[in-house]
Order: sequence, then C-alpha cells, then structure tokens
Amino acid sequence: MTMKEIIAEIIAAKKEDGGIREVYFVGCGGSLGAFYPAKIFLETEASAIRTGWITSNEFIHNTPRALGKNSVVITASHRGNTPETVKAAQMAHEAGVPVIALTWSPDSPITKVSDYVVGYTFGDGKDIAGEKTIVGLMAAVEILNQTEGYENYDKFLDGVSKIDGIVKRARKHVEKRAQTFAEEHREDSVIYTMGSGAGYGAAYMESICIFMEMQWINSSSIHTGEYFHGPFEITDQNTAFMIQVSEGPTRALDERALTFLNQYAKRVEVLDAKELGLSTIDSSVVSYFNHSLFNNVYDVYNHALADERQHPLTTRRYMWKVAY
Amino acid sequence: MTMKEIIAEIIAAKKEDGGIREVYFVGCGGSLGAFYPAKIFLETEASAIRTGWITSNEFIHNTPRALGKNSVVITASHRGNTPETVKAAQMAHEAGVPVIALTWSPDSPITKVSDYVVGYTFGDGKDIAGEKTIVGLMAAVEILNQTEGYENYDKFLDGVSKIDGIVKRARKHVEKRAQTFAEEHREDSVIYTMGSGAGYGAAYMESICIFMEMQWINSSSIHTGEYFHGPFEITDQNTAFMIQVSEGPTRALDERALTFLNQYAKRVEVLDAKELGLSTIDSSVVSYFNHSLFNNVYDVYNHALADERQHPLTTRRYMWKVAY
Repeated sequence: MTMKEIIAEIIAAKKEDGGIREVYFVGCGGSLGAFYPAKIFLETEASAIRTGWITSNEFIHNTPRALGKNSVVITASHRGNTPETVKAAQMAHEAGVPVIALTWSPDSPITKVSDYVVGYTFGDGKDIAGEKTIVGLMAAVEILNQTEGYENYDKFLDGVSKIDGIVKRARKHVEKRAQTFAEEHREDSVIYTMGSGAGYGAAYMESICIFMEMQWINSSSIHTGEYFHGPFEITDQNTAFMIQVSEGPTRALDERALTFLNQYAKRVEVLDAKELGLSTIDSSVVSYFNHSLFNNVYDVYNHALADERQHPLTTRRYMWKVAY
Repeated sequence: MTMKEIIAEIIAAKKEDGGIREVYFVGCGGSLGAFYPAKIFLETEASAIRTGWITSNEFIHNTPRALGKNSVVITASHRGNTPETVKAAQMAHEAGVPVIALTWSPDSPITKVSDYVVGYTFGDGKDIAGEKTIVGLMAAVEILNQTEGYENYDKFLDGVSKIDGIVKRARKHVEKRAQTFAEEHREDSVIYTMGSGAGYGAAYMESICIFMEMQWINSSSIHTGEYFHGPFEITDQNTAFMIQVSEGPTRALDERALTFLNQYAKRVEVLDAKELGLSTIDSSVVSYFNHSLFNNVYDVYNHALADERQHPLTTRRYMWKVAY
C-alpha cells in the first residue's frame, strides 16, 4: 500500500469515531530525529490536528492521556528491534491505535506489532525521495491533506520529485570543502551543530548520531533562535561550529547567528541551503526539505572526518555490544 | 488578578468563539526552558488542547497557522525587553490573541504589548511557589481545569504549597556535595546534564544558561531516553555528567541511564528527587515539580562552581554588551 492508501484506510476506519485528531511520532535517536520535519510540518500547517514527538521510552512511561480512538502512531526502527520502540508500538497497537512502522528490516520484531509496515531507501546512492525522513513527511502531508486539506499538496509532491537531484548535486559540491573540514577538525574534541525550523532535526541527528555516537566527539545541537540566549557565550576563535543556513521562513534566524559567528568565531562551516540548490523547490514548502538536504550533505563530511581521524563510522564501544 | 481569574476572563471572552484550543508557550533561553513543565503538563494531561513550545524568533518567522481566535500565548521575559519576545507578544496581541506575559520588570516593553502581566518571585530566598516555572504551570493547570477539567487540581495545589519547603531543605542538603563537585570540576571543559519528563527543561536550562552562558563550559542536555541511541558513546571515565533522577513516571528512564553511568563513567553527580524529598508530593502530580527542585538545587552547585573557578555567574563577553 502507498502512504496515501494507508492514511485513507485509517481515516475510513475512524470515520464514525471522529477521525484523526492526534498524530504521535515515536522513536529513538536518529529514528526520532528523522520525524522532526514531519512534526514541524503538522505543528505549523495543521489547524486542529495535535502532534506529539516523543522518545519511545518516555512515550511508554508517560503516555499522553489523549492517546486513543482518534490517534495515529508513526514510529521507526532501522533494524526493527529497538526494544523501547517495539514496546511503544505494541502498547499503542494493543490500545487499538493504528501504528505505522517505518523500518529497513522486513520481518523484524516491530513489524509484528504494527498495523502498517513501510520500507524506505537506505545506503549509498539511495533515492533521497524514498528516505525515512520523506516517508515520515509524506505520512504527515497525507494526514493533513485527507483531513483538513493542504493547499500546497502538489507543490510538496513537486519538491519530493526534485529532492534527489538537489541532494546528489549538493553532495558533489561539498566534496572538497568536506575534505578540508576533516583535515582541520581531526583533533577537535567539541563540535557544535546549529539549525532552526523543520531542518533543526538534522542538526540534532548530526550531533547525537555522528559526533557523539560514531566519532566520540563532544557535541550539542544549538537552535539558532536560542543561540543568543545562553549558548553564544561559549563562542570564541577556537570553538568549532557547523551551521545550517536553511531555506524558508526561519532563514533569518540562521543568518543572524551566522553574522555573529562571522564576527566572533573563526572555525565555522556553513551549510547554506540556498547555495546548495534547495531554492528550486517552491518557497511555500521548501522549509520541509532542509532536513533531507543537510542530513545527506553532513554525510559527505562524516566520511571524510572518519577517514581523516581513522575512526570508522561503524566503531562502537557500547551500542549493540554491552547490556544497557 | 490571579492566574485563575485571568484564565477565567480569557475563557469567558472566547465563549462564543469555541473557547481555548491552542496554548503557545513562547520565550527565549531560560524563559522558554521555564515553560517546559507547563508544555509537558498539557501534552500529557489534556484530551484536546494543543500545545506549542517555541523560541520567540521561530514563532515570529514560522507562525503556526492555528494561531487565532482559539489561542492563548503565554510568554516570559525577565527584563521585559528581549526584542524577539516583545515582538512575538506584540504580533499575537495585534492578531487578537490574548497574551499573558510573565516578567520581573514592571513597565518594561513587554508589558505594553501584552494583555495580562504577571510577576513572579526571584532572587535569594524567593518563595519557590511563586517562581516563573510555577506561574507558567499554574497557567496550564488553570486552562485545563477550567476547560476540560483536571481531576488532580487539588493535589496539584497541595504540591505548590509544599514545593518551597522541599526546595529549601534540598538546597541545604546538597551544600557540602556541591562544594566537592566544584572542587572536582573546576578544570572541566565539558559537563553534560541529563534528565527526562517534565523535569528535562531544568537540564536544558542548566546546560545553556549556566554552563555555556555563565561559565563558558561546553555542554549539552541529554534526554535520558535518548542517551542510549547515540550520546552514550561519549561516556568514559573522564566525562562529567550531572544527572537528574526524577520522581514520577519517567524515573525508570533516569535510573536506566544512571545504572549505565555507574558502570562506565566515574564522574557522575546525581540529583535524585526522591532523596531530595520530592516524594511528599502526591504521585499523580509530582513529576511537574521536578523542574523547580532541580533548577534550584543546581543553583547551589552553580555558586560553588563559580566561586571555585573565580568566574562569577554575572560575567559575560557578549550578552548585553555587543550588538547581536
């Protein structure tokens, strides 16, 4: 079934019960981060639908009272076996709430406790339009369009059709600068990421999944709107930042932070969505594509940095190795 | 007017228009962080009310489409002059949305563009029950109770009556360990905070407002539920953590993270709400008081650390000093 068909079936089943009123995005780490644009999409565009974006174990232990007959849970687990995500899906499923699970692993545990299982593209050369982030966004877009209606639906689909080409060109475009970045940051013990709007999730993922998890580099993802209300005091000529300058309504926030960084910091890597070609997507929907762009452009930097540091991205000391 | 009266007046004014459907908490840095328990309260307890928790400049540039006749904006600015918060309040006010502004500064700019101005306690010896965090929570509690109803309303008020005594005893209780912490962390360049549930906002504030802003120490606030999905890979015997072990439904998440830290880390400072006396508040509402407890217990550590490092908490290099 397509996502459009899945959402249509869920809405039809809830027809006598008042339809969809709450959408909960539930997952852990990168799987939660990938839903960030979908969360911002519904929070921004929906007139009445409520949205939750909650790490799986918090969803289990502090379940929203509203979870029930008007809810949908959208969850993700790459290997399909993240214990708390499987448990969260099972809990919702057993409560009669339809669960849409995104996974890379057919027949994995999460597929047994979910109502709908949806795959996504992954790995070298993948079609960006089929990635987890876009699949999550499509769920949100279909829910909005099939309930309240979404006036920019066609423009959104046009954006989806363009994102793969944009990302692949952008990845080529940053190859050289990624290598330079890797050489200049091989000894760094702290690297901050910065972002805003629907693209902020990419900064969060880069910080926790790459720098902390895969490179053991200290990090935090600073919201460019929050930067001036505390975090900017750590800025000096040695502090390393990667800043996302997004396309869309919150670009002004990113540009303000960049202007400050250009004055007081020296080690600033700029990922500018405009320069990277995102602006060919219609301005009414472009902000929702920042995440896919940045997340995949970071990937070029990540491989260069891992090579330069001789610390492969697959190295772990705890994950999947010890009990936790 | 009391918060109860303010909310009653707003509800009465919206009576013919469908009442309150959306509550937006808007602010920057510590003023946004202080609303975190109120956000979690409504997200968890409300059956139908939508909640937004948005940094002011993002609220201005990416305004939720739902902002309108059924909305309330609750905002805060300590000095009452944070430019983007004043602008956000003004924007909402001019759109006919009632704005409740929490501020320490009567007659400040934000009071001119808000519909209701509410003060709070602040400074040495303040009554914790009157602090910004509790005032924000009371707005959320009154909104829920006066619309959908809140079955634990009396228990919540009982908690408010107890929090000042609990916090003041807890602050005494940690004096010695805070001094030891300060001595052992005076040379640290990175200190992480950890937390979950309604108390997570205290970890966020400690990280951005104290370590980054007031001590120029690198930091990030790690959600204990997210810790195992990336961040935990930076754990080693040298990494410094302050972990909040909360009271209430997400305590299990914090305990799981602490168990791991106790095995693989050596420099872990534990703030345990149970040990610190929070459990005298009824279990149905206790989780919403973690923030006030932790935030004020951190304060004892902060003063000890600032003294030990000879870096006063008032020192800034950029804030209020340069253009930004």
